[in-house]
Amino acid sequence: MQLGRVTGTLVSSRKEPLMEGMTFLVVRQIDVDNSDTDTYVVAVDAVGAGVGEVVMYASGSSARQTELTKDKPCDAVIMGIVDTWEVDGETVFVK
Amino acid sequence: MQLGRVTGTLVSSRKEPLMEGMTFLVVRQIDVDNSDTDTYVVAVDAVGAGVGEVVMYASGSSARQTELTKDKPCDAVIMGIVDTWEVDGETVFVK
Amino acid sequence: MQLGRVTGTLVSSRKEPLMEGMTFLVVRQIDVDNSDTDTYVVAVDAVGAGVGEVVMYASGSSARQTELTKDKPCDAVIMGIVDTWEVDGETVFVK
Amino acid sequence: MQLGRVTGTLVSSRKEPLMEGMTFLVVRQIDVDNSDTDTYVVAVDAVGAGVGEVVMYASGSSARQTELTKDKPCDAVIMGIVDTWEVDGETVFVK
Amino acid sequence: MQLGRVTGTLVSSRKEPLMEGMTFLVVRQIDVDNSDTDTYVVAVDAVGAGVGEVVMYASGSSARQTELTKDKPCDAVIMGIVDTWEVDGETVFVK
Repeated sequence: MQLGRVTGTLVSSRKEPLMEGMTFLVVRQIDVDNSDTDTYVVAVDAVGAGVGEVVMYASGSSARQTELTKDKPCDAVIMGIVDTWEVDGETVFVK
Repeated sequence: MQLGRVTGTLVSSRKEPLMEGMTFLVVRQIDVDNSDTDTYVVAVDAVGAGVGEVVMYASGSSARQTELTKDKPCDAVIMGIVDTWEVDGETVFVK
Repeated sequence: MQLGRVTGTLVSSRKEPLMEGMTFLVVRQIDVDNSDTDTYVVAVDAVGAGVGEVVMYASGSSARQTELTKDKPCDAVIMGIVDTWEVDGETVFVK
Repeated sequence: MQLGRVTGTLVSSRKEPLMEGMTFLVVRQIDVDNSDTDTYVVAVDAVGAGVGEVVMYASGSSARQTELTKDKPCDAVIMGIVDTWEVDGETVFVK
Repeated sequence: MQLGRVTGTLVSSRKEPLMEGMTFLVVRQIDVDNSDTDTYVVAVDAVGAGVGEVVMYASGSSARQTELTKDKPCDAVIMGIVDTWEVDGETVFVK
């Protein structure tokens, strides 16, 4: 999984019918030191994440293993809101 | 999913029989600030997108989860036409 | 899918039995302006492509969705020979 | 598979229910010469790896082929703790 | 598939039980001109490749389509030993 910060929302009214009702969030990938990267992904939200929250997202076929995204044309899903992580014994991020 | 702008069309008459009848579009990936990138993909159109439209596309096995592309040798599909998105509270794009 | 030009052939006599009888082609990825890139892939040929031809190829699990490659350890397949494409209203390539 | 060094842990209390009980580890990818790279991944631990250990991890759909991660929205799993490897006849790493 | 040269071996005694008995090889990716790249992968050997041999390997879910790797957490498999290939009418490599 990769770490990201939810930076916005996206609306698509004309879409694959299977995607009806899903929330699309714009997620900026962040590094393990909590700094921003230049990589973005549009991900389906499976956990009720809000703008500004730090999340984990899964890509590829694994993005279809949530209740919400099963058998849907979705290749990125937010599957966890991050509380905290540490690296080399130092706490890097606390929600 | 990634964001892209449909920039053209592609014709392939000799192809895997399973791909008969599909529309192939040339999609230029765009950044979250709506600027062009140098990355292109040839994607199957599952939503009736036209040249110039801004779309979302799914890659990999997720590209086979639309009605049209199920069990087909397709690794990129346009699965939504984008109406609008916002980043950090600013509207970046409106259709 | 990505665009490529078939640049050569590859022979492997000792291989996974499931790959018996397949034709392996060396494909150079090309850009949407029909220029060469430095990226190559060895792909199975599902459409009878010849050296020099411009093709589309699918990667990952989608490469196993042709008759020929079903359930085979193949991660790249040529699934279409390209006749023509256009970008921004200009024809870039004609076979 | 890629090689990595476990550098930390991550906690996510609000997550996809299917991910309950899993241990998330922050893994820094290492090169074949045992030097650090700048690439990190958050992986599920399927083998009881500890911080500091050198491991192999699998990505994509293969990350869902352990007992623990089957049918879960997980795209990276630690599936082996590395004892040793050698390159060009030289031992590079010993646990 | 990508081309690689087997450069070493790796031992992992504590691993996912499903991976018992597999041979892990360190493979250096090579370019189509037979020159070394800086990219390495740890791959399962499905064809009895030896150190120094030039091979093809498949990645992702396709790496689980050999007899040996079926339903295993394996994302790279050596599925062919290369005899020869040619590019633009020139033979680049002969075993």
